Amino acid sequence: MTTRPIRSLVAAASALALLAGAAAAEDDMDYYLSVFEPLPALPPIPADNSLTAEKVELGKMLFFEPRLSASGVISCATCHNPALGWSDRLPRGTGHEGQVGLRNTPTVLNSGFLPNQFWDGREPDLEGQALGPIQAPDEMAMDLDEALKRIEQFDVYIRLFREAFPGEENPINAQNVAYAIASFERTLNTPNSPFDRFLRGDVQAMTEQQVRGMMAFADNGCVACHQGPALTDGLFHRFELPGPTDLGRFVVTGDEIDRYAFRTPTLRNVAVTYPYFHNGSIDNLHDAVNLMGEQMLGQAFDDDTLDDIVAFLHALTGEMPQVTIPALP
Amino acid sequence: MTTRPIRSLVAAASALALLAGAAAAEDDMDYYLSVFEPLPALPPIPADNSLTAEKVELGKMLFFEPRLSASGVISCATCHNPALGWSDRLPRGTGHEGQVGLRNTPTVLNSGFLPNQFWDGREPDLEGQALGPIQAPDEMAMDLDEALKRIEQFDVYIRLFREAFPGEENPINAQNVAYAIASFERTLNTPNSPFDRFLRGDVQAMTEQQVRGMMAFADNGCVACHQGPALTDGLFHRFELPGPTDLGRFVVTGDEIDRYAFRTPTLRNVAVTYPYFHNGSIDNLHDAVNLMGEQMLGQAFDDDTLDDIVAFLHALTGEMPQVTIPALP
Repeated sequence: MTTRPIRSLVAAASALALLAGAAAAEDDMDYYLSVFEPLPALPPIPADNSLTAEKVELGKMLFFEPRLSASGVISCATCHNPALGWSDRLPRGTGHEGQVGLRNTPTVLNSGFLPNQFWDGREPDLEGQALGPIQAPDEMAMDLDEALKRIEQFDVYIRLFREAFPGEENPINAQNVAYAIASFERTLNTPNSPFDRFLRGDVQAMTEQQVRGMMAFADNGCVACHQGPALTDGLFHRFELPGPTDLGRFVVTGDEIDRYAFRTPTLRNVAVTYPYFHNGSIDNLHDAVNLMGEQMLGQAFDDDTLDDIVAFLHALTGEMPQVTIPALP
Repeated sequence: MTTRPIRSLVAAASALALLAGAAAAEDDMDYYLSVFEPLPALPPIPADNSLTAEKVELGKMLFFEPRLSASGVISCATCHNPALGWSDRLPRGTGHEGQVGLRNTPTVLNSGFLPNQFWDGREPDLEGQALGPIQAPDEMAMDLDEALKRIEQFDVYIRLFREAFPGEENPINAQNVAYAIASFERTLNTPNSPFDRFLRGDVQAMTEQQVRGMMAFADNGCVACHQGPALTDGLFHRFELPGPTDLGRFVVTGDEIDRYAFRTPTLRNVAVTYPYFHNGSIDNLHDAVNLMGEQMLGQAFDDDTLDDIVAFLHALTGEMPQVTIPALP
């Protein structure tokens, strides 16, 4: 996966704008409907980690399990807080002993649809992602062997791991922790947003302003990077932000082109997953869209267009998963 | 409220044991039924804080609101974790920047039935309790004015405070935060435990061993302190524990008799609210009951009695409140 240079982006955006302008003139909604994809009911399921009710139930418990952290009070759900759009609404994540991390906490919602995981894309899938924050010294700061020892103390977990991974001699292991958490996360999707209902034919689902915003989003080339069911291309882009930053994708590849480049985030539920960008330095959608226009598309949106696009982004908020808090052993 | 000296306790226990022994010989279950109280549907509601659906809904949001903490990641629900019996299952609470506090986190469950709040009883009611942990430097470490400023930023909160406290000119204030949280907490009760069902006439609700344990609990005088609907007298007692301690009730009254004295905890849901005692130094019910027998009653329970009492304590686990995680603004 490579970083797409800004210039080709702008070229792509311009080409799209031309095409889209023509289409708009003909009032051809079919064009716009072809540009976007509604959110499927489930993300792709990996062949080696089938999605079962047993894994989802176990994964849910592990997701809410603070004893997977060194302090015993931080769980996945602390920063990926179901009350806060499965994120934390802080500029940058706050973990073990109050340490503030380098980057904004991405939402878990629809994360199974992402082509890769973390802001720098260093893991290909949720299975690879799940064990990262547990061990990160500034997040849950936990030794994985110690975490497994804690889990093994509970008969309930012994039974649930056996049921989730039948036939395995020692099912309580790090890989299965990752498999279970990833399975739970693949159920945390937000279908039936106004945008999805519109794409499926309910023309009343979005307001007129939101429809104009959707058109502007396509016409101006935002869709060049924010494409696919999660509205991200999974690629890495560089731009300037206020506030602290880190080397981004460069720490993964060592390629100069990846220095300060970060993965396009999903826009689904973007209205409830503020603040924005990899350092969380922008706290409202107007400023975020404005910054993207200037830096990625080389243009300043006029106020009406900005308002329309922001209205459209609000149409990307779907139905939140109804998760009851599990009873832990 | 005064500390009851150990000697009078033991005398009371002996008297009870005599009475109870006679009653048991007659197989007079009526005696035992008269000793205990089933949990009412709701705790007492203070005259100045009527329980309304609007306050409960607002209080629930505030209870889950991490922005009431300085770090923005600690809410009431962090230590009073619904997944962990509305406590944290740690010896002592862990708060702001990972600081470990002096005392074990009490469960919120049925806390409206407690005659006073905190291990040292320094607040008379939940309204008085609610603002303590928000401001405590080793818990949420939040300035109250700053907390109110954060809340006022959200239209949703402005609306919900108006609805919960109609007619007030400036409803977003510290007292109303306390009123709302206390109202929510008064709904967090655990009715219909096997013990409650037994007391209400369902003789099959407890096992034979649990019934024997209930009798032993009364006969041996445990009920002298663990009485009333929450199985606590609300009084303060002194005994020796392994691990660190603090001055207890002495810090409230300055009376020597209160040095190292702590309030009798509720025994409701005690099986799911380990570890035990004010410093959380005992992690299982057998050791906890054994220690109480030796120190408070001056007797070593034989193994069968110990097993019976522990079985009875498991019958005190009621129906957990079904709380869905709120969506915060």
